[in-house]
Amino acid sequence: MKTEKKPFVYVDHAATVPITDSVRAAMEPFLTTTFGNPSSAYGAGRASSRAVLDARRRIAAVLGCSPKEIFFTSGGTEADNWAIKGSAFANNLCGHIAYSAMEHHAVLHAAAFVRRFGMDADEIPVDSDGIVTADAVDASMRDDTRLAAVMLANNEIGTVQPIAEIARAVHERHAVMFCDAVQGMGQIPVNVSDLGVDLLSLSGHKIGAPKGIGLLYIKEGTALTPLIDGGGQEMHMRAGTENVASIVGFAKAMEDAAVMPDMTRIRQMQKSLFDGLRTIPGCVVNGTCAQEKRLPGNVNVSFPGLDAESLVLHLDRVGICCSAASACTAGVSEPSHVLLAIGRDREEASSSLRFTLGQRNTMDEIEYIITQVRRMVNQLYAENRVS
Amino acid sequence: MKTEKKPFVYVDHAATVPITDSVRAAMEPFLTTTFGNPSSAYGAGRASSRAVLDARRRIAAVLGCSPKEIFFTSGGTEADNWAIKGSAFANNLCGHIAYSAMEHHAVLHAAAFVRRFGMDADEIPVDSDGIVTADAVDASMRDDTRLAAVMLANNEIGTVQPIAEIARAVHERHAVMFCDAVQGMGQIPVNVSDLGVDLLSLSGHKIGAPKGIGLLYIKEGTALTPLIDGGGQEMHMRAGTENVASIVGFAKAMEDAAVMPDMTRIRQMQKSLFDGLRTIPGCVVNGTCAQEKRLPGNVNVSFPGLDAESLVLHLDRVGICCSAASACTAGVSEPSHVLLAIGRDREEASSSLRFTLGQRNTMDEIEYIITQVRRMVNQLYAENRVS
Repeated sequence: MKTEKKPFVYVDHAATVPITDSVRAAMEPFLTTTFGNPSSAYGAGRASSRAVLDARRRIAAVLGCSPKEIFFTSGGTEADNWAIKGSAFANNLCGHIAYSAMEHHAVLHAAAFVRRFGMDADEIPVDSDGIVTADAVDASMRDDTRLAAVMLANNEIGTVQPIAEIARAVHERHAVMFCDAVQGMGQIPVNVSDLGVDLLSLSGHKIGAPKGIGLLYIKEGTALTPLIDGGGQEMHMRAGTENVASIVGFAKAMEDAAVMPDMTRIRQMQKSLFDGLRTIPGCVVNGTCAQEKRLPGNVNVSFPGLDAESLVLHLDRVGICCSAASACTAGVSEPSHVLLAIGRDREEASSSLRFTLGQRNTMDEIEYIITQVRRMVNQLYAENRVS
Repeated sequence: MKTEKKPFVYVDHAATVPITDSVRAAMEPFLTTTFGNPSSAYGAGRASSRAVLDARRRIAAVLGCSPKEIFFTSGGTEADNWAIKGSAFANNLCGHIAYSAMEHHAVLHAAAFVRRFGMDADEIPVDSDGIVTADAVDASMRDDTRLAAVMLANNEIGTVQPIAEIARAVHERHAVMFCDAVQGMGQIPVNVSDLGVDLLSLSGHKIGAPKGIGLLYIKEGTALTPLIDGGGQEMHMRAGTENVASIVGFAKAMEDAAVMPDMTRIRQMQKSLFDGLRTIPGCVVNGTCAQEKRLPGNVNVSFPGLDAESLVLHLDRVGICCSAASACTAGVSEPSHVLLAIGRDREEASSSLRFTLGQRNTMDEIEYIITQVRRMVNQLYAENRVS
């Protein structure tokens, strides 16, 4: 009897990507022979601290800043928390912060934390295309606003924000500009000087480094209290023995991501997937249709009336790995706060599918996805009509 | 010409240890093929979340608690910060905390943070043997004390604290008992129920797991505010995509550490090293001489008048990797706060050497260390007398 291998079509690159071969090779010595603690004074320790120093220098070169402005964290979420809470602590929990309504939960919940401890924190509205305008940011600023947080690209709908323009508006009000750039790196340019930001967060596992490593860029002179105190690591700003292997891997992944390989091909696949899905009855596109305002790999659509979680599980059965909302809150059946922010109703915001494409995807896979989604959606709508 | 290979005698196991082969093998699939985000609903995500669940269950079995009480962090330092600050936030930054004067800098500096934001924070004195007594803890408690922090074993002098007795004293005053057990795991029993603690921190890289992974045990019912908010990971208590490979490696390392291999042999080497070093003129033993009150692998001595950092660098030249104080603050020439806490003067506290032994060390290496330290110390004292 002939058995066919189940397809494995991974289109959830915004959730995580595998460690690349080049990253793995860079990490190898630090998982085995070069194991010293970077704080140790002897040779085996110095080899580790040199590796961390070198990684910091290379990442700074990618981001267009000084190595002294790069601080390693355990990931994007810690970096987001540090930016928001560290800034709040530096301001003695006084004053106001503003953040876009479609920020990652790490920012939203960190904002809730500072609100609990006495600061004011307000949402900046997002337009129906999924864009935060500089005018909207300006209108949300107060005289006592200490920090504004707007992400570079949204994790669910992939819309890219006019950060440089927003940063100018924020600086005119003498506040700190924080940008969560976790989803942009590797797909669009990330240069802190061009963006004009004071704080910027990144994550390793979205670009081929391991899970558990990230960074916060802190522009020199920006007031920020450490979130994690202790030994003097990370220039006395982030304590804890350095995750040397992952830091080294992160540097390699950053260099690889900086060249943004294959984006033209990924853009073509994105267009084909959008075009195909839009021919399916019921399909609603989430976020702007202007491709240049969207990350190359991101496709997000809703099928109102259907349940996103069950759509994901249906597609899993035919070998397609995609997401209902952001992976970080998958399993939770709440409507997406991002889709609500761009004006979708609860039904639309509970029926979305996110496909995020990467270098390994092919046009054949795009065709397969369209076929499978069409079959599934038609069937589910038919069942709904019958019941 | 014959060249001899430089010896490599690693006796700084309290700073870090290499990843073990068994840990590495356990991690391997999660560094390669099983890369899904544990929050993702499809099969590749579920494989990762199952691995995290399994690791949590196995670690809970080692520690004698429920899997629901284990929360993964980026290391011991984050766990220490979370215990202190999370408890302070849960108490709305009101009231008092007490912590032993020889805690790790992660605890000391976290205490300074909560003091800055309005709480009272006092040191619990340590006796000249390096022991914190239950009486000393009781005397430091106030009616509004919310938390007491006493480490299981000190990272510099290896003295083991009577945690069960201390926990009873703390609970009589209705406060939370936090124990930093980073240095004890793998050398003495660590069972949260026997210790009677409410919070307990551990680090992976001290026991053969990678750097960048740790945990906080939180006894059910203990009030604690998250330090890192965001996605709902770690039962909504510690956000951020799980470091799956390191979590799996940590579980293996915990199981391996729980059997405390080779402790009898390590105890013998410890005795021989102490005996040998004490015959060197000028040698002062730091911490109790009662071996049963000390971690099996820890030897800490001072040579008053000599500079600890330069002793470490001298020994590095003959292939011996040891530490001046804790590795986390190496490079800083401040006298050790631990040695000051046990009553050493600044000269003694600036001239200490810490050797921490592990399974791979041999009695030949112990003899080599004694010979080299004797030669170096005699020479340096002679130079000092001449100069």
